[in-house]
Amino acid sequence: MSNPTAAMLVIGDEILSGRTRDANMHHLAQEFTKHGIDLREVRIVSDDRAAIVSALNALRAAHDTVVTSGGIGPTHDDITADCVAEAFGVTIDVRDDARALLQAHYDRQGSELNEARLRMARIPEGASLIDNPVSIAPGFSLENVHVMAGVPSVFQAMVASVLPTLTGGAPLLSQTLRIERGEGDIAGPLGKLADRYPTLSIGSYPYQKNGVFGSNVVVRGADGAEVDRAITELASLFS
Amino acid sequence: MSNPTAAMLVIGDEILSGRTRDANMHHLAQEFTKHGIDLREVRIVSDDRAAIVSALNALRAAHDTVVTSGGIGPTHDDITADCVAEAFGVTIDVRDDARALLQAHYDRQGSELNEARLRMARIPEGASLIDNPVSIAPGFSLENVHVMAGVPSVFQAMVASVLPTLTGGAPLLSQTLRIERGEGDIAGPLGKLADRYPTLSIGSYPYQKNGVFGSNVVVRGADGAEVDRAITELASLFS
Repeated sequence: MSNPTAAMLVIGDEILSGRTRDANMHHLAQEFTKHGIDLREVRIVSDDRAAIVSALNALRAAHDTVVTSGGIGPTHDDITADCVAEAFGVTIDVRDDARALLQAHYDRQGSELNEARLRMARIPEGASLIDNPVSIAPGFSLENVHVMAGVPSVFQAMVASVLPTLTGGAPLLSQTLRIERGEGDIAGPLGKLADRYPTLSIGSYPYQKNGVFGSNVVVRGADGAEVDRAITELASLFS
Repeated sequence: MSNPTAAMLVIGDEILSGRTRDANMHHLAQEFTKHGIDLREVRIVSDDRAAIVSALNALRAAHDTVVTSGGIGPTHDDITADCVAEAFGVTIDVRDDARALLQAHYDRQGSELNEARLRMARIPEGASLIDNPVSIAPGFSLENVHVMAGVPSVFQAMVASVLPTLTGGAPLLSQTLRIERGEGDIAGPLGKLADRYPTLSIGSYPYQKNGVFGSNVVVRGADGAEVDRAITELASLFS
């Protein structure tokens, strides 16, 4: 596949401790798939400076696009922006355009732009802001890294802001056939089918429901007619 | 914290494409937290040999324990066992004890132990088997790497088999206080509180509900009395 590749870095103690389930990864995966961007890797790390910097540098070197989620709020454990600056070796400071956005927002609310909130205007040198229509405090993009909030409604709004600026590829088409047999019964013919369609990705995702084992076989590819042919052949093999 | 550290490697095209949500990570995170094992990192990679081998080697070098999920079934896209063998530089072949488990199982079922199913008896040299009471085909442990199935019911059974063999630490105690104010209002005092309790981990997890912003503040630590004191102080700050 020659589609652009992407990775996601989730900064989230709360996910690693089992307190919450991540929702942003699933959203981004679906949006990227629709847009023809191939999400190849996700890493979830804790709120640890060295871990974040090292993951960021590995992912931005290996992929066309990196999206981060989490750690850009006003509290002491929000260290993502500083980590991005460190990873790129650039300075970070309060920036006038980001401060102006926050000032206008808190003026409207009758709240104070205090020291903590002002931290959300700290933007690494050379970055451009990502619009946040939900809660104003912006994300930012630096080269191929897009830094977004962890709150799902804000994350989704930021993805919607950035997605049109990314180069997409041919959207992968996919069809799924649910086969109510154990994978061991279908594996042989399925492997031969995969050999006959080298341009398609054919995956088998087993499930167990009420004690019965079965598999969802997913056929993916850029050529819809080819996907159709493979699914038809698959259905005839196991009908 | 001196608790043992762990990482998880999820092998899953279906998660990266947005087709399914991962459920195993959340389960493992909760089990490890209860057991006093500090889950530090999760990586999700696609069914790609180089990506799996490279992630495995990075994670097993950096953490006390690594758990993998997915890719050990009978189909052509199940390549995890081969990747583990490659990562460790050991051979892999059908092993008698694993074959015997499968043979007995399929005999009972009146199914055939065909070539595809026999792939599930391929075990890297030097590994020990992980019991699978749900669907028999075993996982395996090699040094600090524990290789488990992706089907959630099987994954959970394998975690239950392996967990008692792992060295746990002091279970982290945690208490959560829900504060119905924007993070910007609480960030200053919260940061000072975190400074006063250096042995505790104090995290702020913002939410937005019905247009109202608030935060769940989570205080974690091994000393229950200390966690109590910090939560009481926190409550008095924002009541």
